[in-house]
Amino acid sequence: MKERITKVFQKCEEKPDAIILKNPGESIVDLNFFYATGLEQGLFEGCIAVLRPDGDITIIVSSLELELAKKADANILTYSNREEFNIHLKNSIQDCKKIGINHSVLPLYDFKKLVKILPDTSFLNVSDAFNNVRQVKDASEIGNIREAVKIADRVMEKIPEILHEDMFEYELAAEINYLLQKNGADTPAFDTISSFGKNTALPHYTHGNSQLKASDFIICDFGACFKRYNSDMTRTFVFGDTSEKHSMMYSIVQNAQKIAFENIKPGIKAKEVHIAVDDFINTSEMKGRFIHSTGHSLGLGVHDGGVGFNSECGIILEEGMVLTVEPGVYVPGFGGVRIEDDILVTKDGCELLTKSNRELIQI
Amino acid sequence: MKERITKVFQKCEEKPDAIILKNPGESIVDLNFFYATGLEQGLFEGCIAVLRPDGDITIIVSSLELELAKKADANILTYSNREEFNIHLKNSIQDCKKIGINHSVLPLYDFKKLVKILPDTSFLNVSDAFNNVRQVKDASEIGNIREAVKIADRVMEKIPEILHEDMFEYELAAEINYLLQKNGADTPAFDTISSFGKNTALPHYTHGNSQLKASDFIICDFGACFKRYNSDMTRTFVFGDTSEKHSMMYSIVQNAQKIAFENIKPGIKAKEVHIAVDDFINTSEMKGRFIHSTGHSLGLGVHDGGVGFNSECGIILEEGMVLTVEPGVYVPGFGGVRIEDDILVTKDGCELLTKSNRELIQI
Repeated sequence: MKERITKVFQKCEEKPDAIILKNPGESIVDLNFFYATGLEQGLFEGCIAVLRPDGDITIIVSSLELELAKKADANILTYSNREEFNIHLKNSIQDCKKIGINHSVLPLYDFKKLVKILPDTSFLNVSDAFNNVRQVKDASEIGNIREAVKIADRVMEKIPEILHEDMFEYELAAEINYLLQKNGADTPAFDTISSFGKNTALPHYTHGNSQLKASDFIICDFGACFKRYNSDMTRTFVFGDTSEKHSMMYSIVQNAQKIAFENIKPGIKAKEVHIAVDDFINTSEMKGRFIHSTGHSLGLGVHDGGVGFNSECGIILEEGMVLTVEPGVYVPGFGGVRIEDDILVTKDGCELLTKSNRELIQI
Repeated sequence: MKERITKVFQKCEEKPDAIILKNPGESIVDLNFFYATGLEQGLFEGCIAVLRPDGDITIIVSSLELELAKKADANILTYSNREEFNIHLKNSIQDCKKIGINHSVLPLYDFKKLVKILPDTSFLNVSDAFNNVRQVKDASEIGNIREAVKIADRVMEKIPEILHEDMFEYELAAEINYLLQKNGADTPAFDTISSFGKNTALPHYTHGNSQLKASDFIICDFGACFKRYNSDMTRTFVFGDTSEKHSMMYSIVQNAQKIAFENIKPGIKAKEVHIAVDDFINTSEMKGRFIHSTGHSLGLGVHDGGVGFNSECGIILEEGMVLTVEPGVYVPGFGGVRIEDDILVTKDGCELLTKSNRELIQI
């Protein structure tokens, strides 16, 4: 992890003497804490990592998570009450004049506490430095993502066997999540989407009480989380007879995705990929039906860091970036089609990580 | 939800003209956003709710989540880019001089943006007002928690049938999560703990590659999330022959829990319950082996709001609070026992919500 940390310091415009990452816990997680420490298991609620320019790490951890913290290559200080915590924190950074913090996650409350404990310190925002370094994945990260993708692929291939008439959406979600974990996922990457019929026209709908009927589109959008790294893939099936409308919508999305794959390579701006896809769909019968971005970065977060295939992202693609490619079209009251795959930007193009069949499957 | 919101305003020491709750999304969730809006499904990443003293709500939401946002009794403003978002926000609060925000969740980055958009506004912290109101659950919240508890109870009762020699811990976690969802949970409440043998001595260990062997303690600690409300329960089993040590440890925890139940009633301080439990264990053969708190509040969060059965919590118990009661003892290298139940503080004591058997079960 030393290399990750030294890179982050290099990317800081103004150099801090140390970086403090607090992981508040439960409903607020600082993924940079896990990026810097490499800790694969544990909650680390309320924990702090103090990072130094040479890659040195000090973790201030509740005594309850001492055993898990030992997996990191770090100095470890345990506390069992607030007072001990504050003493450790003060001792760890008393020589620092400038401290880097993560503005994107650190709650205002914790910032105000830091200022109180360290009144003579100035604070710099290091969010961008982390986002920047995290955009290009290292070998260990790519290894974990590959494993997360493999698990999702295996599960996706089993879905056609599971589907049956009158199945509930929530039942399918339960089966998918079960298969993910049986195949080695630590958890599902996010709340699994398993929507039927007209619900497939709502891209952010997850699953409810609808039952599977003839001529329904079926959207399965899920991923595996493996050692904190995520995959994210989507397939659309048709239950029963496939109409011309089903085929037409599917074929447009399939071709849109091919256009994305052809455009992805180092040196072009992320938004150029989205514009090519959007332009293609808008010259088809599905004009105006593509209502989200073409894809997002993937890693410790399901939507990781700053790069994404959307109309606003001017970031230039680099070898080692991992993103999803997920065009879709949505017809309210009828249904939607989305196909999503995970890619790794290579030296001269992209490698498709997800391998599952991308042709339209009629169940 | 109007009543919840007016109560929060009443609890604010200095009265704001409006409260802004931003739900940053993915790895940062503001549960107060969901408390105030009552929205049961959806991510609402980057969404804002503007609350008024009379209970009026305005939700500023991405057009992708419009359909889901309509479930709230609120004025809804949609945006499809950053500029529209800022205009809506400014228009929604241009008459306000003092605005309440949630210091405990709002990232420093978002705070600085608010200050930029609203340079003439002063900001007040309303975290405590929310925590205070959320400590006592209303009828709809208790209804959802009861349902979440029922689901977990049903799953816990099936576990003895599932366990078998050489089973992997992660396999058991997959089975538990599957059963939770098949029984109606939206998701597991948190990363399910299913630990065997000496791993049961680590309270924050979740699950790994260990296999079930004779004389292992088995700790199952999980909950259901139902309409965003959580249950949280733990049972400890023994696989194969139960030794005197197993029985002795179990019986101490069982008796410790009874002491907690007897002590819980409105009017006493939360810490008194913990002290009674801790004192009991420290006069037993398991002296020094109880290394965490006796319990925590339960609701939208698994660790909800400020009240908890720990040595520092001076909050006085009130009718309508929902908490867990989870004494445990841990012997490194051998194993641990924890029994956890969910209770509702009643007029003159407490109601046990979880119903599963609490006697030691030998598998």
